Amino acid sequence: MGATRNPAKPAYYVTENLVKLGFTGKIYPINPNASEILGLKCYPSLKDVSDEVDLVISLVPASAILKVVEECSEKGVKGIVVIAGGFSEGGKVGRELEKKISEILRKTGMRLLGPNTLSPINPTNKLIVSFRGVKELKKGSLAFCFQSGMYEPKLGWIFDGIHLGVSKIIDVGNKPDINEVDVLEYLGKDDETNVIALHIENIKGNSKRFVELLKETTRKKPVIVIKGGRTNMGAKASLTHTGSLSEGNYTIFKAVLKQTGAIHAQTLEEFFDFAKIFEFLKPPKGNRIGIITLSGGEGVIAVDCCEENGFKLAEIKSETIEQLRKVYPPWNIPSNPFDMGPCIEFHGNAKVCKVVLGSISKDENVDCMAIQLPAFIPPPELEEVVKSFLKLKELDKPVVVWRATMGKQEDRIVEELERNYIPVYPSVERAIKALGKLYEYKVFLEKLKEKT
Amino acid sequence: MGATRNPAKPAYYVTENLVKLGFTGKIYPINPNASEILGLKCYPSLKDVSDEVDLVISLVPASAILKVVEECSEKGVKGIVVIAGGFSEGGKVGRELEKKISEILRKTGMRLLGPNTLSPINPTNKLIVSFRGVKELKKGSLAFCFQSGMYEPKLGWIFDGIHLGVSKIIDVGNKPDINEVDVLEYLGKDDETNVIALHIENIKGNSKRFVELLKETTRKKPVIVIKGGRTNMGAKASLTHTGSLSEGNYTIFKAVLKQTGAIHAQTLEEFFDFAKIFEFLKPPKGNRIGIITLSGGEGVIAVDCCEENGFKLAEIKSETIEQLRKVYPPWNIPSNPFDMGPCIEFHGNAKVCKVVLGSISKDENVDCMAIQLPAFIPPPELEEVVKSFLKLKELDKPVVVWRATMGKQEDRIVEELERNYIPVYPSVERAIKALGKLYEYKVFLEKLKEKT
Repeated sequence: MGATRNPAKPAYYVTENLVKLGFTGKIYPINPNASEILGLKCYPSLKDVSDEVDLVISLVPASAILKVVEECSEKGVKGIVVIAGGFSEGGKVGRELEKKISEILRKTGMRLLGPNTLSPINPTNKLIVSFRGVKELKKGSLAFCFQSGMYEPKLGWIFDGIHLGVSKIIDVGNKPDINEVDVLEYLGKDDETNVIALHIENIKGNSKRFVELLKETTRKKPVIVIKGGRTNMGAKASLTHTGSLSEGNYTIFKAVLKQTGAIHAQTLEEFFDFAKIFEFLKPPKGNRIGIITLSGGEGVIAVDCCEENGFKLAEIKSETIEQLRKVYPPWNIPSNPFDMGPCIEFHGNAKVCKVVLGSISKDENVDCMAIQLPAFIPPPELEEVVKSFLKLKELDKPVVVWRATMGKQEDRIVEELERNYIPVYPSVERAIKALGKLYEYKVFLEKLKEKT
Repeated sequence: MGATRNPAKPAYYVTENLVKLGFTGKIYPINPNASEILGLKCYPSLKDVSDEVDLVISLVPASAILKVVEECSEKGVKGIVVIAGGFSEGGKVGRELEKKISEILRKTGMRLLGPNTLSPINPTNKLIVSFRGVKELKKGSLAFCFQSGMYEPKLGWIFDGIHLGVSKIIDVGNKPDINEVDVLEYLGKDDETNVIALHIENIKGNSKRFVELLKETTRKKPVIVIKGGRTNMGAKASLTHTGSLSEGNYTIFKAVLKQTGAIHAQTLEEFFDFAKIFEFLKPPKGNRIGIITLSGGEGVIAVDCCEENGFKLAEIKSETIEQLRKVYPPWNIPSNPFDMGPCIEFHGNAKVCKVVLGSISKDENVDCMAIQLPAFIPPPELEEVVKSFLKLKELDKPVVVWRATMGKQEDRIVEELERNYIPVYPSVERAIKALGKLYEYKVFLEKLKEKT
């Protein structure tokens, strides 16, 4: 409702995305001043639609919402998405409005997402609510839940930049009805979702129930959580944007989170870093890691990160060391962390990657690997280098990669590796930290098993 | 020495860079098997050069180095750069070799950088040692010192990607002679250097002297320090790559660092993030910050970061609030953190940026600002938006910016802002943390003044 034909308005893209991306259901644009929108017949009002309507996406401003909700209730609609802001986050009038809406919902059993939301997104049926023209919805098994439209400018980056496939994206907004408890319960049961990434500022539903749910869910699938409003100042700011006070002590929150087995992201970068690794990889069998770098300096930092994230340096077998000698300069004894730098200088990228990646990955003492991307690869060697990386997917050992140059050639390699579910991170610290979370989750699951 | 005409060898680029980038001194390539390299007359040996020689860059392998050092000593050369590896990091033979070299140096007073170095770089006289063809050396006031060639693949990114201008880059390598103490002393006195960024694994010189020097230097210019080998495992790894054991307890190291007033980077990303902000901006007068975002959710996280990094939310004056009302929707009361999202929906990017950035930056209660870049700006509005950001440079208040979309349009804006010394970070957390270090350094300097 409130569909528009004017491409200068953000609301236009809500209809356009549904049409262009091929929403699998039927679309009934409602606008009393238009007869047709994007080739779809337009209806003057909801009651003029003779078919049953499952979901209404409302684009009308807050002042007109009560009428929309009433019409939906009369029509027997099951769910409403309210995009408009200006409710409880705007002050008293808005809070009253939310209360009135909640009363209607309670009476009818209708469910409402928002207000103040820019979602949901579901690549399976191509249901999408967005103010930008979205090109592609890559389907995956990762579900996001936000308490803000903050993910929205990052949508292109999520799909095309960090190559995430998504099962659902939900922004609960002011959440007078559907809140994080409902979403977590839904996603926990959703067969299309294997990983859940949750941004929360506060628990509006039953917080005891939320913690129980979190405990239940983490046994089945990893849940990554980031909290906005972790400081006093932040909690106050939270009140003004979704009308909910982000209460409680962050120290307690962190402790509770740990108990539930949820994975705690401290920054937005960690949030997406961790989401990617759980979407891309299965946990390693153990914590014996093989490190491959381009320089001794990054090797040392990599090893620091290993110790800080629960890894042991794998003790490489003598057979493997023998193989590595083929590409190592004579003065250099191959040892973990492995510095490919001098090897490449003498034998080139293609041969060194084949020998080093190949032999270390096959070593029985290696459970997982962290590898720095080779830099400035001569174009004739490029394909062979990428092949050596892709070959790692044949083994049942998780591999994380980090970037060396940040250059354009590297962008293309990253693209190819990530399309093949080898996660690439901008830095050694982020790569190994993400891998650490994967291992941490495996240990958590094992401890659970021991208990039962 | 060891110059080559073969572009397939990394060594080729050492000569090519000097020629192409226009090294201001004279170059004498030495190679007994060539008469000319890149248009320069080639000499069979060092003694065939009749002019005085200040610096020798040695490209010969470890096994031939002793002869090079002896020849340099006979010729009266002042300094030698030894690129080759295979010295103390390779074992006993290499350690012996380093000792013999050190004896010659002690007798002659010659100085040696390396072995196992890929440096120095000096944009002033275009002196550069690198294995890649480097396009441009942007001159700035930031000096880097590494204990590894790890920065080398990132060279293009440093200059073109994060737009840093550099005064010197030095990789001390195995440092039997020139070490971090010498470098810090030199950079502390260097008029071209205003900011020092130091990667160290261990102190090979006099560590008491190093701490004293650090204390002296931080009074004059900020020193950013990252430590490799902060864990036991990492310290051991350090031994195998530059032949130096990274000793000592990291907790003690951190405490000592704090006492000296040095700025501690915990990750490589922080190292470059902090280097950039000190190179680009002067510290704020106070800690009252104005936050501008595209969504309430990022606003809350921004505020959390402010509290965690020593900032107070600026209390915006009522005159400023009045001006903001022009672009705010009626239900939304402008308050810090400011959410531009709904404003842009109604008034467009150009107008909103002009009003919001313009009025908040001029508010007397605002000492500094953190701003999220607008997203998906319609091309006709682009120039005006960038203008509003660049206008902020007219005021004496530091501004940090963080990205919203990670898209290509944004890349171009980032480029323009950073060329004008407005630092742009990939995330809100990194932007505000970097700004926090700038403020922390100002507080440190003020406390020093109080004491004296």
